[in-house]
Amino acid sequence: MTQEPSLQERYAPQNACFGCGPANQKGLHVRSIPQGELVVADWKSELHHEAFPGVLNGGIIGALLDCHSNWTAAWHLMRQSGEDHPPCTVTADYSIKLLRPTPTSGPIHLEAKIVESKEDRATVEATLQAGGKTCATCRGTFVAVKPGHPAYHRW
Amino acid sequence: MTQEPSLQERYAPQNACFGCGPANQKGLHVRSIPQGELVVADWKSELHHEAFPGVLNGGIIGALLDCHSNWTAAWHLMRQSGEDHPPCTVTADYSIKLLRPTPTSGPIHLEAKIVESKEDRATVEATLQAGGKTCATCRGTFVAVKPGHPAYHRW
Repeated sequence: MTQEPSLQERYAPQNACFGCGPANQKGLHVRSIPQGELVVADWKSELHHEAFPGVLNGGIIGALLDCHSNWTAAWHLMRQSGEDHPPCTVTADYSIKLLRPTPTSGPIHLEAKIVESKEDRATVEATLQAGGKTCATCRGTFVAVKPGHPAYHRW
Repeated sequence: MTQEPSLQERYAPQNACFGCGPANQKGLHVRSIPQGELVVADWKSELHHEAFPGVLNGGIIGALLDCHSNWTAAWHLMRQSGEDHPPCTVTADYSIKLLRPTPTSGPIHLEAKIVESKEDRATVEATLQAGGKTCATCRGTFVAVKPGHPAYHRW
């Protein structure tokens, strides 16, 4: 697992989001790391995240890809605008395709990239790989919220 | 909360799926109940399921709607084939639209219905309602697996 600080640790250490909050003791702790044009994350499943023995639950797959893609969008919008802190972004929509069962015996690797963006939003495509194969894909839209939205100060 | 046995309790009491397994102590315990042409569920969030204070995480929303829709499909395919036990179904894909923040202060209500089906699969549309509003929607495809698939004996 990459030991450099993740985007979440750098910009939202107090955040308690189920999927990616460093401060959520029962959360998934997605750790998103920029790597060239991609944002990547490595993750390890626990027993209670499974759908059935040895296979990751599809809802957890969505939760991982949703949060990882949201941070990919926030990171991109930050660099695009030249700010030194990412805007608070929320998910507008995400679509998950489950291509094959995701084995929980080994590491799970996420990769995300920007495929389209405007001033306040980005479309992100992401994959989940495990056991040497792409097991799931995600495409989603993530939007920087405006002052007054309940998520405006989320990080 | 409806006290009649849920589909999961009736047909898969030993199942430990993160989203809907009665036997998963750390899971979401979605309890899907047929109600006419719909399948409904009532659910209550815990603190660690939030995205930020007072608002449900979008990955958890997906996990709830995915499992609830999967059981809606299994129930439908069982009745369609005249069997007395649902086939083991898995998610092929699901798409989530988040229409507004989902408040965690009160009950969360899921409703799902079949919109298309073949012999071995069904397309399901579902909604998540909270605070008197529809906060999220889902559309997904769920497939009855064949012998040899690792999910064949999941319930």
